Amino acid sequence: MTPTLGILGGGQLGLMLLQAAIDWNLRVHVLDPDADAPCRHLCTQFNTGSLTDYDTVYQFGQGVDVLTIEIERVNVDALEALEREGKRVYPQPAVIRVIQDKRLQKQFYRDNNLPTADFTLTDNRADAIRQISQNPALLPAFHKLGRDGYDGRGVQRIATAADADKAFDAPGVLEKAVDFEKELAVIVARNERGDVQTFPTVEMVFHPELNLVEYLFAPAEITTDIDRQAQAIARQTADAFGIVGLLAVELFLDKAGNVLINEVAPRPHNSGHHTIQANVTSQFEQHWRAILNYPLGNTDAYQPAAMLNLLGEDGHTGPARYEGLETLLTMPGVFPFFYGKAITKPFRKMGHVTVMDADMDTLRQKVSAVKTGIRVVT
Amino acid sequence: MTPTLGILGGGQLGLMLLQAAIDWNLRVHVLDPDADAPCRHLCTQFNTGSLTDYDTVYQFGQGVDVLTIEIERVNVDALEALEREGKRVYPQPAVIRVIQDKRLQKQFYRDNNLPTADFTLTDNRADAIRQISQNPALLPAFHKLGRDGYDGRGVQRIATAADADKAFDAPGVLEKAVDFEKELAVIVARNERGDVQTFPTVEMVFHPELNLVEYLFAPAEITTDIDRQAQAIARQTADAFGIVGLLAVELFLDKAGNVLINEVAPRPHNSGHHTIQANVTSQFEQHWRAILNYPLGNTDAYQPAAMLNLLGEDGHTGPARYEGLETLLTMPGVFPFFYGKAITKPFRKMGHVTVMDADMDTLRQKVSAVKTGIRVVT
Repeated sequence: MTPTLGILGGGQLGLMLLQAAIDWNLRVHVLDPDADAPCRHLCTQFNTGSLTDYDTVYQFGQGVDVLTIEIERVNVDALEALEREGKRVYPQPAVIRVIQDKRLQKQFYRDNNLPTADFTLTDNRADAIRQISQNPALLPAFHKLGRDGYDGRGVQRIATAADADKAFDAPGVLEKAVDFEKELAVIVARNERGDVQTFPTVEMVFHPELNLVEYLFAPAEITTDIDRQAQAIARQTADAFGIVGLLAVELFLDKAGNVLINEVAPRPHNSGHHTIQANVTSQFEQHWRAILNYPLGNTDAYQPAAMLNLLGEDGHTGPARYEGLETLLTMPGVFPFFYGKAITKPFRKMGHVTVMDADMDTLRQKVSAVKTGIRVVT
Repeated sequence: MTPTLGILGGGQLGLMLLQAAIDWNLRVHVLDPDADAPCRHLCTQFNTGSLTDYDTVYQFGQGVDVLTIEIERVNVDALEALEREGKRVYPQPAVIRVIQDKRLQKQFYRDNNLPTADFTLTDNRADAIRQISQNPALLPAFHKLGRDGYDGRGVQRIATAADADKAFDAPGVLEKAVDFEKELAVIVARNERGDVQTFPTVEMVFHPELNLVEYLFAPAEITTDIDRQAQAIARQTADAFGIVGLLAVELFLDKAGNVLINEVAPRPHNSGHHTIQANVTSQFEQHWRAILNYPLGNTDAYQPAAMLNLLGEDGHTGPARYEGLETLLTMPGVFPFFYGKAITKPFRKMGHVTVMDADMDTLRQKVSAVKTGIRVVT
């Protein structure tokens, strides 16, 4: 008898986990604060409730055998209580606690000799201003809130000492800005017995203003040596955490050819959606394998792939409509995925499109055609 | 706003349709007589009720915009009433009516000059006996019940005139047995605007006693000429029916090199499960495309594939256990799919395994390893 699984969070990542769970007939309970969350109709049991409330998370955890997350902002105290009582909670609460707080996360890299941009911890705005003046070599830098930043919120660029008063008046980390050539990501899986398996390195192109992945290409166009570094760092990071589950490791390749950790997520990640179609094992199946302590799956790609996020068009708020969908569906190897969010808002992630082709040039042409071909409007 | 869809039947084919529907965030209602059917937790609305009861089917159809099936044994009168009232019912009730009855089906091939084994219609046992004695050239033959045969039930082999009294005492069809070299299948999709797209021809190896697909290989190992015939016949059959949706066309390749239609199914089919992983568009996505009148998807295969049905082990009846699953999960390109049936019975279809490999020999080795490696026991 397979265990009953629970997911904290019922958004698009949960949805894709549920889709992968169908193959193995897994029983999955989902908790989400939104009664209309994408997962609501597609799980064995859907519960509405806060992910950050101790009692709600604790009670939900009582009903399952193995508990996982699709979002980091969850009540870790409740997860630790469940873990103490013998529940399998993966990723482990201790890992989530470190990753939830960018200060602990950066300190973790330093403590474990994992390469990351230079930084200093700051207690509040006054402390940040003081440290900026004492340590101008850190500039230009980003000041990041320790907790509760997400998708570009909670990050402030400090270009010169004159910007110092833009720092957040809360515990944060001041991190030297990396003059990067490319942004890369490697998704790693690690199971209970310590087996580790990585997905091929991908290359992300972020939206210039939104701090959201705009395009992704897999594999990344990098040298074998850089690829080896990226893969090794991702493995070392997963081993350092001792994580059970997926760890998405976002990396900078700087202009001097160094690979540095930007940040990590202990769950399926936007940078692995293309693996549903493009790789032998998808990141979602791999997550189940890892937390069920099954053998990890082969991660080879069938073909090069790309991914575009479908963001709500600027100036459109209301019930969503997908302009250009029919044309998209005429293109071979183009796979739209809609998250089931009824309401679109400017730049809201409404879905994504995976694009595949055996030929990289054709792949790029298809990506351009998709980019201009579909719009999420009202 | 996409329409609300309904599926008559909540078994494994429905389950795989639901899995494909997640990508496009389709709202799907399901009707099944079994409150524990595989689809029960994975659709927008699950209804328990008979598929053959007029009122139940009619009422269910009222709640959706587009109605489809995953099994042919449904109340066609109710579907015709819904169609008359303007509901989109795909496949069309008239098509289901013909296919439900092997007599009408065979007559349809004859009327449309579609190649099929010689046959005669029989009214009852006495008539069958009389026709057998009058037409010994039809022997050896199969006597098939017109209606309600399924997976080997309702089929009786009549080798010689001495077997004539084994014929069913009900309307049937006496069909000359084909001395076949191979059994092939082609899945065709046709949308409302008449676009037609076929999947590559596959080769099926049936279990010697059970009349269930034991192995499937895609693509079939046949000459280009035979492949062209198979593909052309499948297209012609879909066009002759004017079907909207999928049509799975099972074919015999006889020892003289003729391709003959065996039977068809107006829905996703066991011979297309491998398309989930192996082809650009799966048969399940293709079915949604067809009945939503979207452009049909590209059906190219990434790699050769095989499929094995997971049948309940003989002598085991009770809660199912999958012996050897962990070993299976160590094999790259091996994809088990379990249908969520709690109870296993001898030879019950409990799931299937898709196997992929770029190399045909390695593919065959993997198939053998899977065949001996996993057992459905209690």
